[in-house]
Amino acid sequence: MPEIRQNPATKEWVIIATERAKRPEDFVAEEEEYTIPDYLEDCPFCPGNEDKTPPEIMSYGDGNGNWTLRVVPNKFPALVPHVLGEREEDFDFFRRMDGLGQHEVIIETPKHNESFGTIDDAKALEIVTAYRERYLALSEDKRFKLVKIFRNQGKAAGTSLEHPHSQIVATPVVPLHIRHRLEEATRYYDNHGKCVFCRMIEMERKEGERIVMEEDGFVVIQPFAARVPFETWILPLDHHATFGEIPEQELKGFARALNRILGRLMSILHQPAYNLVVRTAPSGEEGEEYYHWHVQIIPRLTTPAGFELGTGVYINTALPEITAAFTRES
Amino acid sequence: MPEIRQNPATKEWVIIATERAKRPEDFVAEEEEYTIPDYLEDCPFCPGNEDKTPPEIMSYGDGNGNWTLRVVPNKFPALVPHVLGEREEDFDFFRRMDGLGQHEVIIETPKHNESFGTIDDAKALEIVTAYRERYLALSEDKRFKLVKIFRNQGKAAGTSLEHPHSQIVATPVVPLHIRHRLEEATRYYDNHGKCVFCRMIEMERKEGERIVMEEDGFVVIQPFAARVPFETWILPLDHHATFGEIPEQELKGFARALNRILGRLMSILHQPAYNLVVRTAPSGEEGEEYYHWHVQIIPRLTTPAGFELGTGVYINTALPEITAAFTRES
Repeated sequence: MPEIRQNPATKEWVIIATERAKRPEDFVAEEEEYTIPDYLEDCPFCPGNEDKTPPEIMSYGDGNGNWTLRVVPNKFPALVPHVLGEREEDFDFFRRMDGLGQHEVIIETPKHNESFGTIDDAKALEIVTAYRERYLALSEDKRFKLVKIFRNQGKAAGTSLEHPHSQIVATPVVPLHIRHRLEEATRYYDNHGKCVFCRMIEMERKEGERIVMEEDGFVVIQPFAARVPFETWILPLDHHATFGEIPEQELKGFARALNRILGRLMSILHQPAYNLVVRTAPSGEEGEEYYHWHVQIIPRLTTPAGFELGTGVYINTALPEITAAFTRES
Repeated sequence: MPEIRQNPATKEWVIIATERAKRPEDFVAEEEEYTIPDYLEDCPFCPGNEDKTPPEIMSYGDGNGNWTLRVVPNKFPALVPHVLGEREEDFDFFRRMDGLGQHEVIIETPKHNESFGTIDDAKALEIVTAYRERYLALSEDKRFKLVKIFRNQGKAAGTSLEHPHSQIVATPVVPLHIRHRLEEATRYYDNHGKCVFCRMIEMERKEGERIVMEEDGFVVIQPFAARVPFETWILPLDHHATFGEIPEQELKGFARALNRILGRLMSILHQPAYNLVVRTAPSGEEGEEYYHWHVQIIPRLTTPAGFELGTGVYINTALPEITAAFTRES
């Protein structure tokens, strides 16, 4: 019998379509013959091609041009910082504003073929340290309301560039999709006097069956109302509303959890395409009790269709309890 | 300069990414050599295989087994009608309910290879007549709150079956995504005393540049805040909150508009994958002033990535004014 589940934090429903349910093994891709080279002459992110990106915002390395990580503006930015971005006050019906914001690319490594899951934890730590550094820098700009870190891997996840990279977009508005989530989290806090994610961690640990792993200070789950097969969340045990508040000493645990779970998913599903997004309260909401930053990993194993687009409700053909066991034990 | 636009009906923002903007021609697929046959022996929807689907709910035809359209339950339904579907009142934290609902497939034609855009208007009328008939039947079941009609065409749009078909899912809840849209439309009505879609039609006609065509009683636009390249809406001039309220005499104009615009998109973009969804107020909201049913066609020419998943904001690489001109004039 199909089951309808509600995400306790967002109140969104998902349908767990048991009638068309697949076994976890059914989502495993064929192993590809293709091996990614560690250097590509015409890759704009490979060393030697630094002039193919806009001027660097920051980099890590030995300071003598041997960089280990670079942050650059996106060459084709979705939003740009050098405009006014005032919201039109007078408008007839159609409201538009200049595309104010910032769009950065974190080139995670000089190597064309090393990515989360195949790098060591020290390298992973370097990347999440850059996440934090850029998050904090962009949060300080009062024109920006939301700083969104994300990562697209694989063609099915919408990326065209193979070289390992993450992206950060700072937006001048809090999108509705986010605002609704914040409102639901606030409502939970109002009703229960507790952060809904703190409570979720407690309940997931109590039930246990959707927990994939724990790494110091972080718990990795495939959530109760997973929208897609193998959807995976990384939740910090320590409550902080915004990503920028992660204490420096917790970055190590975060890097480890991220690197381990992605390594696991890469290996059991055979290099699936995925999107990674950091969920955080908007800038300026530091210290708030009602929200709790976390990471969502969305493998792109299935294609959302008309029902999903038209209702916002996902039909998931896998039970998270079963995929979690498979992920944990494979 | 990139531009941020707000959908006047939903208040959702989209980014029109002019820095990475493409010409309309860039979205045109290569013409495929592959020709779809008009009959496939092992297609469950082709004539002669009627026993491969669950028993028929209704059909059109000569009554002697020569059907022209069949409606059957989905063999692998997302939701099923034979369960109680009561919402748990007591639950610790994780809320689940039985997957109550109904999931039907409209097999639009016995021919494996004829679809909107290549059929005549009389055939298109037959299909939308079935949409209406099933919509009304499912709306009468008081257990169902929303009756969602949709159509997936092409692999990139999430369909695996090639034979032309539409789907209807009746759900026991009004999804949040829909509820938020209804709330925004209500707010507009409260503030302005007018349906936001009636006003949109008025304004789109005034500006003119996003109008693709008009067919009696229906206007076809590529909306101001289009989320993806060539997103297209069909709006009835006549105000009705729910799809079921479309008067029988207007079905002809609707069929014509749908058939014409899909024919145009098929021909200029070379058989793009697309999703079609009918937006409607929930069952029981018939006669309401604040909402206005319409159809959205979402070509799947680009892949939403981490930014879209993490913020709900789409980055559109095409200007609707330009794609509308291209669609209108090609």
